[in-house]
Amino acid sequence: MNTIETSFSPTLFQHFSPEGKIVVVVDILRATSVICTMFKNGVNKVLPVRTLDEAKLMKDKGYVVVAERNGQKIDFADFGNSPFYFTPETIGGKTVVYSTTNGTNAITIGSTANRVVIGSFLNFSAVKNFLLAQNSDILFLCAGWKGKFCLEDSMFVGALVDELLNTGEFQTICDSTNCAVDIWQTAKPDIPTYLERVAQRHRLRKLGFDDVINYCFSFDVTHKLPVLRDNMLVAIE
Amino acid sequence: MNTIETSFSPTLFQHFSPEGKIVVVVDILRATSVICTMFKNGVNKVLPVRTLDEAKLMKDKGYVVVAERNGQKIDFADFGNSPFYFTPETIGGKTVVYSTTNGTNAITIGSTANRVVIGSFLNFSAVKNFLLAQNSDILFLCAGWKGKFCLEDSMFVGALVDELLNTGEFQTICDSTNCAVDIWQTAKPDIPTYLERVAQRHRLRKLGFDDVINYCFSFDVTHKLPVLRDNMLVAIE
Repeated sequence: MNTIETSFSPTLFQHFSPEGKIVVVVDILRATSVICTMFKNGVNKVLPVRTLDEAKLMKDKGYVVVAERNGQKIDFADFGNSPFYFTPETIGGKTVVYSTTNGTNAITIGSTANRVVIGSFLNFSAVKNFLLAQNSDILFLCAGWKGKFCLEDSMFVGALVDELLNTGEFQTICDSTNCAVDIWQTAKPDIPTYLERVAQRHRLRKLGFDDVINYCFSFDVTHKLPVLRDNMLVAIE
Repeated sequence: MNTIETSFSPTLFQHFSPEGKIVVVVDILRATSVICTMFKNGVNKVLPVRTLDEAKLMKDKGYVVVAERNGQKIDFADFGNSPFYFTPETIGGKTVVYSTTNGTNAITIGSTANRVVIGSFLNFSAVKNFLLAQNSDILFLCAGWKGKFCLEDSMFVGALVDELLNTGEFQTICDSTNCAVDIWQTAKPDIPTYLERVAQRHRLRKLGFDDVINYCFSFDVTHKLPVLRDNMLVAIE
């Protein structure tokens, strides 16, 4: 039977063996939610880059650049990191260069795996159906916050693992994965109240960006699944 | 108001600022439970060492050496890592050199803090009363398993944080700490059933060492609090 594991932070990823597994990168507030929104609205490709130097270089080459640090848009970038910026008008058909505090780091770290896919509540069923259709072990990689554990990524992992385990086609002896399921069971009956405990919710509120919260916890806004190919994200349906 | 944070693994400790805080090292199965048992039964001092080379050197100097890797006693050591080995007869009045897979690493990493204390269910109230008597921020450092998150350490953190927050003298905006409280709330109504999900419980069962489980989840077997002084653990009451 295929197994499920969870790395709560990119810093912990060194303790796992991603080879041959599907890595699901999770950064609910906000990178993977933003990426899913981009593909929903017709972006062609997304190139995740770790450093602002790389992003600036691509900007000079004429690419559309989305770049954020500590929640704030970087000066030279075309857009900051709110999913609401990305409409068919702004990014339809384009290749977008993308660099954020936590999420793009996780994507590049995860790229040692066999396959890397992007998970969020917005494409929940697309991720689930993909994982069920593969015959593969799964490793969730949470982006966290500056290397630390964060609750909102665990909520997503727990919600998805709960459904995967219920199919009887997966098993887990991973404490992090079981912890995520506990988190989801605790949060599920009243998600808005649970989110009041989430540190990133308060960081975004301080910056005036907490209008994205309800949206980022909406299930199945898109059926597109972003996957990493040759260091670029493209969508499969 | 003083704050509470939690590092789920020694690997994550680099993301925290321990200076000026009290670090509580937690390795429920089994290092911190073993250390509390040693002091309960009259050990004089415990010297935690990270490497087996250091432990061997101390053995050659005539010290009593307790050393374990992957649950198993090391050949040259006097004892393996079960708390049941440590009676007044075996370690009373002695200085013990101690090296384990996860726990001693956490103690040495935590030693950059202002003060380091050893926490387990066995000295639960001693830790709690000490923390309440200090006017200090607290940082829990879970030993984990080979760098990974583990559930049993979080159970202890959650149980203790729950009581600390209820006093109204502490606050937390740390997601890991809130997660630990959720874990404890989930586990508390039926701890034996919850422990069946814990990976370390199964590792110990395979090795025939799971007779320690009930003991390691017993509250307040001792009122002694091991603290780190000049790289040695000594007990205060």
